[in-house]
Order: sequence, then structure tokens, then C-alpha cells
Amino acid sequence: MSSSPPAAPPPPSHPQPEPVRFGIMACATIARKVSRAILLAPSAAVAAVGSRSEAKARAFAAAAGLAAPRLHGSYEALLEDPGVDAVYLPLPTSLHLRWATAAAAMGKHVLLEKPTALCAADLDAILAACDAAGAQFLNNDIRVKPDLDALGALGDAGWYCIRAILWAVDYELPNTVIALCNPVRNQAGILACGTTLYWADGKIAIFNCSFLGNLCMDMTIIGTNGMLHVTDFVIPYEEKSAPFDMATKSKLVKLEIGWDPLPSKHVIPADLPQEVLMIQEFSRLVQNIRDSSGKPDEKWPAITRKTQVVMDAVKTSIDNEFGPVDISC
Amino acid sequence: MSSSPPAAPPPPSHPQPEPVRFGIMACATIARKVSRAILLAPSAAVAAVGSRSEAKARAFAAAAGLAAPRLHGSYEALLEDPGVDAVYLPLPTSLHLRWATAAAAMGKHVLLEKPTALCAADLDAILAACDAAGAQFLNNDIRVKPDLDALGALGDAGWYCIRAILWAVDYELPNTVIALCNPVRNQAGILACGTTLYWADGKIAIFNCSFLGNLCMDMTIIGTNGMLHVTDFVIPYEEKSAPFDMATKSKLVKLEIGWDPLPSKHVIPADLPQEVLMIQEFSRLVQNIRDSSGKPDEKWPAITRKTQVVMDAVKTSIDNEFGPVDISC
Repeated sequence: MSSSPPAAPPPPSHPQPEPVRFGIMACATIARKVSRAILLAPSAAVAAVGSRSEAKARAFAAAAGLAAPRLHGSYEALLEDPGVDAVYLPLPTSLHLRWATAAAAMGKHVLLEKPTALCAADLDAILAACDAAGAQFLNNDIRVKPDLDALGALGDAGWYCIRAILWAVDYELPNTVIALCNPVRNQAGILACGTTLYWADGKIAIFNCSFLGNLCMDMTIIGTNGMLHVTDFVIPYEEKSAPFDMATKSKLVKLEIGWDPLPSKHVIPADLPQEVLMIQEFSRLVQNIRDSSGKPDEKWPAITRKTQVVMDAVKTSIDNEFGPVDISC
Repeated sequence: MSSSPPAAPPPPSHPQPEPVRFGIMACATIARKVSRAILLAPSAAVAAVGSRSEAKARAFAAAAGLAAPRLHGSYEALLEDPGVDAVYLPLPTSLHLRWATAAAAMGKHVLLEKPTALCAADLDAILAACDAAGAQFLNNDIRVKPDLDALGALGDAGWYCIRAILWAVDYELPNTVIALCNPVRNQAGILACGTTLYWADGKIAIFNCSFLGNLCMDMTIIGTNGMLHVTDFVIPYEEKSAPFDMATKSKLVKLEIGWDPLPSKHVIPADLPQEVLMIQEFSRLVQNIRDSSGKPDEKWPAITRKTQVVMDAVKTSIDNEFGPVDISC
């Protein structure tokens, strides 16, 4: 008796999920960077562009090299487009509350520009709208708005500083924030400011952010047994690589005439630009909800909210003559 | 008629001046680094060692590899040695006033360890004694005292931070100093502290110094049109080279996906260790007085005094619950 061997089972199927279909909501030049990232991200596509006029939407699509997206002459029309899974909002911060909540109410996932809101209360309203609609929320932490927004340098460069500091402390909120006492302002807002942050266990952080100095995107993190230097933590020097230096348990050599070990230099090659990685992450979360009945991820809203809470505290300290502002979670 | 050509004039004579003869006043281990620098400096020699006992002086000379210096069993005897031009004082800060003024009174030039004094008033007494005696004063800005001195981390790492900040602003004193509000102390003194410094034109500086973290000697200077990074500004990574990065008029490229120009990397080769350069500078000043009837140089005392004034202000701010301390020159 003989039998043919059983047929090998087919290889497990890993079909690529359909790309997330983005609607770009507002056509300022600043939307170009994330539009490019959506084009470059395998898991995303630009399905539609909405502006206050169809002509503006068309002009943006042409300038950004978008291949025939649907064009909408109003934000409302974009939100009513059933072929849009998620919207990217590069609107001015003061408009975030209105349009992010409207997008969530229409069942769209929301990728919001930073600073996410003028204050934590507004952000909470946006997050509540997303939560009620089951919409994924993520905020862009890639710099695209160098303009003077309502929060000025604090909402721009300061946002990254706060986010990076929170990253360094594993997102533990500080207890107290005290702003440096010489912010520079003009009628539009803050041009330069800084702050000190204090944790209960003795950790401290300091940042200074400014529109007035030469480009500088340094971060130095010092721990008991190690140190990390990154000098392009907001915008990378180059898209294709990420350099950093670090040291572990450095000691001074005898007579204190040198270090041992020396800090080590590292370069991480980058296959995709950082903003494409962000689009990929957002798309993955949206696909999980759209295609697999998953739930919105809570990590990004939580991190964003902590960033906003610290930013609010810095602003309060500035408004209160640089007095200490306690943060309660 | 013929004549032989006139003889060429002899080349101008540049006889090397006699080395400056140092007396090392106190034999703590911390004196080893500068002893080595004196040995390595062509313009300097160790003529004598003084300690509280001749046995200690002998042991130090042997350990430091000094070739038969005269040995003195008291500081007074060292100061009475006519073969000593200059003394190096690695004594504890609290003894600086007494012994630096005694040295100047005996006509010795004074190389003083940092922190130079417990306060500006003590430093002024030392400088006045040097001035009255026509003695050159210079303070060592090379780290040799990691021990907890009366001023702790502020007098140690903080001294370098203040000096480096003053260097960066061409030695313009700040108007106001406000200490960060969480110094760490033990019964011996300050283990970690920081401060903010404010100038009338809007410049600010921030430093944090600590005995509690991993080695970190970073300095970042940001101006309107440029930036400088030094990551080993106190103790060099290696004696033979001095690395730094700088950028001038960096801009973000289109879409803000990179920098142009990138910061440039530089390495300055060092023929002599930094502390030897300091001994050479001090010796040059002493030789000018000893051999050419020159006058003491006023630059180093002035810089040292400014450093001390700022350090005093930081300490006052810490003592005054981190309130602002105005500096008047």
C-alpha cells in the first residue's frame, strides 16, 4: 500500500493590509513635509485634499506631487468623504479643537500637528471626542511649523524639548516647573524662553528654546552611570542616519589627564525618514482598528497629554512671574 | 681695488631665559598633576618642596619623580628659600588666604589652586598682597581637586562652568544670578547644584554641576549666527587633541528634512597638555617680572575675581532660598 505524501500546507498568508487613506486638511506649505511622508510610507496613501477652496486644494496637490487625490473645497466636505480613513491636520493650533473634534465625530482617525492644543483642557476635549468615536489619535512630533503660532517658540521648539525630556525619564511627570525669567516676546507671542523641571527623586531637567539663535538641537542626558549626547534630536542632520554619542561609567585616568573609557560614537542608518516612520506607526494603529476591530492605542494620547500638561505649566509659570508651578497628574 | 664683503651680522641672540623655579607648597596627591606639568614645561622647574614635615616632602618628591628638589619641613621654610621664584599652592581652599598672602609678602609669585578663596573678600586680600609685593598671581583652572572642598561641587565643577561661561561672553559679568532650587548637600557641602545667569542684553547661561552623575563636561554655546559644542571642556578626553564641533548660519533645507551646512568637526592637536600650557603662561609672566623688570599681568587676577564674584552670587542665591542676586562690578 502506498500513498502519496500529504501535500505541504500552503505558506501562511500575510496579505499586506490596504493602505490607510489620508485626507489632508488644510493646504499650508507646512503640510508638504507630512504629505511627502504619506507618499513615502508603504502603509499610507493620500486619498483627498481639503481646503477652503477647491482651487487651493488643486494647487497644493500639484505642488506636492500627489497623484490625483479627490479635491474638496471645504473642510466639511473632506470630513464627509467616505474614502478617507484618517485626517492630517496642519491647521493653526487655535483651530485644532474645532476641527479635530469634528473629524473624530465623523469617525476619522486624527493625526494632529503639534502643539496639539492651546491648553490641556482643549486637548482633553479632543481626546474625549476621539475616545467616544473610537478614533486613533496621534500627534505629529516632527517639526513642520516653524512659524510663530499662538504659543510661539514654546509651542514649537519647546514642545520637542518637553517631549524629549519626558522620553528621557520614561514619561514620569515632573513635580514642579519653574520658568526662566527672561522670555523674549513680541506682539505675536514668545520668541525665546526656558524652564527648569524638578522631580521628587532629585532629577532635574533644563531646556531653553528660541527662534532667535542659530539652529541648535542638542540634548544631553546625564545619569548616575552614563551619558547620552544627541545633537540633532528634532530635525536630523541628514535623513539617512542618526548619530549619537554615549558613555558608560567613564572615569578619569590617573592624574586626571584623560577619560577612560572615551565616549563611543554611534550612527544608526535610517531606511525611512523619521516622519515616514511616524506615518507608518499611525497607519499600523489605524489598520488594526479598521481591519481587525482593534481598539485605539492609548500610549500616544497619554504621552501627548503629559507634554501638553508640562507646556501648560511652563506657560503658567511665565504668566505668574516665573514662580513655581506644581503639577498634579 | 678690492675688498672682502662685509661680514654678515651675527644672528640676533634669543637666549632662553632661566626656568622659573617653583616651590610646591603642600604634598597632597592632588599636587601631582601640576608637579608633572612643571616637569614637562620647558620654562619651569621644581626647585623645592615644602610640607609640614621633611619626610612628607621627601616622599612626595620620590612619588612625583622630582630630581632632588630642596626639601623643607614647613611652609615657612619654603617661603624663606631664596631659590624659589614662585609657589604653587594646592592647599585646601580655607588655607588659601593665609598662605597666599604670606607667599606674596615673601616676594613669591603665586599659582593658586581653584577655587581661589571662600569668597571675593578673601580673594581681594590675596590679590592686594600680590599687588603690594609686585607678585604675579594666576589661578590654576585645571581640575586637580575633585575632593569635597568647602564649596563642594560649586567650587569644583561649578568653578569651571562659571569660567567657561565668562569666557564665552568675553568676561562680561552677568547682571543677575538665580540658583536652581534643588541643590544636593551632605554635611560637608554641596554635592550638586545649578544656576541661571542673566545679562542685560538678553543673553542667558545655565549650568549644572554635580559629583553624583557620570562624567559629563559638555558646553554648548549658541549665538545668533553660530554654535559651538565642546564635550570635554574641563578634562580633555585625551591629552594630545582637543575636539570641537561648530556651525555657522545653519539653515534647514527645503521641507525641513536636514541641515545645511552641517556642523563641522574639528580636532586641534595639542603638543603640550593643557596644564603645561598654563605653567608656561605663568612662567612667561614671572620671567618678564624677574628678568625684564616687567609688571604683573592684570588679566588673570581680573578673570579670577570675576569668576569668584559669580560663584559668591550663586552661593548667596542658594543661601537666600534661590532668589535673584544682583551683581555689581
